[in-house]
Amino acid sequence: MGENVGAAARAMKNFGLSELVLIAPQFKWPSDKAQALAAGAGDILERARIHPMAGEALAPFNLVLATTARERDVLKQIHTPEAAVRRLREAGKAGARTALLFGGERAGLDNDEMSLADGVITIPTAEFSSLNLGQAVLLLGYEWLKSADSTPAVRTRQTNAVPATRAELTDLFEHLERELDAAEFLFPPAKRETMVRNIRAMIMRSGLSDQEVRTIRGMIVALVRNKYRGQKGRGKSE
Amino acid sequence: MGENVGAAARAMKNFGLSELVLIAPQFKWPSDKAQALAAGAGDILERARIHPMAGEALAPFNLVLATTARERDVLKQIHTPEAAVRRLREAGKAGARTALLFGGERAGLDNDEMSLADGVITIPTAEFSSLNLGQAVLLLGYEWLKSADSTPAVRTRQTNAVPATRAELTDLFEHLERELDAAEFLFPPAKRETMVRNIRAMIMRSGLSDQEVRTIRGMIVALVRNKYRGQKGRGKSE
Repeated sequence: MGENVGAAARAMKNFGLSELVLIAPQFKWPSDKAQALAAGAGDILERARIHPMAGEALAPFNLVLATTARERDVLKQIHTPEAAVRRLREAGKAGARTALLFGGERAGLDNDEMSLADGVITIPTAEFSSLNLGQAVLLLGYEWLKSADSTPAVRTRQTNAVPATRAELTDLFEHLERELDAAEFLFPPAKRETMVRNIRAMIMRSGLSDQEVRTIRGMIVALVRNKYRGQKGRGKSE
Repeated sequence: MGENVGAAARAMKNFGLSELVLIAPQFKWPSDKAQALAAGAGDILERARIHPMAGEALAPFNLVLATTARERDVLKQIHTPEAAVRRLREAGKAGARTALLFGGERAGLDNDEMSLADGVITIPTAEFSSLNLGQAVLLLGYEWLKSADSTPAVRTRQTNAVPATRAELTDLFEHLERELDAAEFLFPPAKRETMVRNIRAMIMRSGLSDQEVRTIRGMIVALVRNKYRGQKGRGKSE
């Protein structure tokens, strides 16, 4: 259906894939429904090439990997999506023209089409397995971009704030512990050292910026001031 | 929209996620459109819980990671999908109840909702970035299943065929080389050793089964027989 091709184009564009070849589409082309589903990826549809036969469509490619949900009696290598895009990237670097081959929504790929593929890709799923064309393209596209993506696994957003210096942290620790001593929180004395160590570890774990250290010190000042006010208040009423 | 929730349920079921919680849905629930898009994942919709507020919906969870396309001025850790599911899996193993938090199609997550998340997930995309809710759930679900999936990166389908023994391969090599010598293909003699080595490497690379070795030997016999017939034929006509 045209909708599936539109969704596939949108998925492609999200992940930097741009060259779409359609083999014997069974719907009117160009397709309004494809355009509607493509959202901002209409340019990919406009540049798409159409061929009546797989052989002709795949003629210029040196390496073709085909997605399939059904693992057939073909003795081809079966790749995870991750392994597949790695193989495509490596072949591409060595000068090969590479392609991903997807089957139609209902019938999938026929045996003639499969015979032109160097290998097969199976997307791992749970027992329930129901991925449409757009979803298959989305997952392969995602792995394609990911295989060249250098985003660190975990990062913190860049801001003007810099991590606090050790001196700022030490001042914070001493300020807090002085007030906790005054409040007789660090009690009994035999446990003081362990309690202090645990509190310092807890604070260190949050990776405070210089601004956040100042905020916390302000909070301590405010809480202590409030406590003395409270005592004065009680003092008056007594 | 109901459709997005249906697509999300279908994506979940493909990757073994089953517990869906909706926060203040802005459409009639239960939703026929959600059911239609869920395909075989209607059971997830039927078991879905609804809460008017994020705080209530997220109350039982120990670790919550939120997807966001916009990286805001919040000093939270930003995870790739892969790093996020690894963190969720590890916390889960340690006994934590974990959740993935997704924003609505248009407005995304508001600041109150974000404040309940331990960290943020950003899906890497190309410059064009337009993923809907169903697609975001699909990609996180895929990473979730993948993080526990032990499918080898590349494998060959299990069949009754076993890889050929070294003896079967050696017999094949010798058979082929004998016929190539007879056909004066391995020429000149100074290059014979290199040619033989290259041909053997080419054959080894395809990882032949015992049955395939027998097929190739049959092909050699047939080709040679045909050649002699051809010569006989030419002999007759001369």
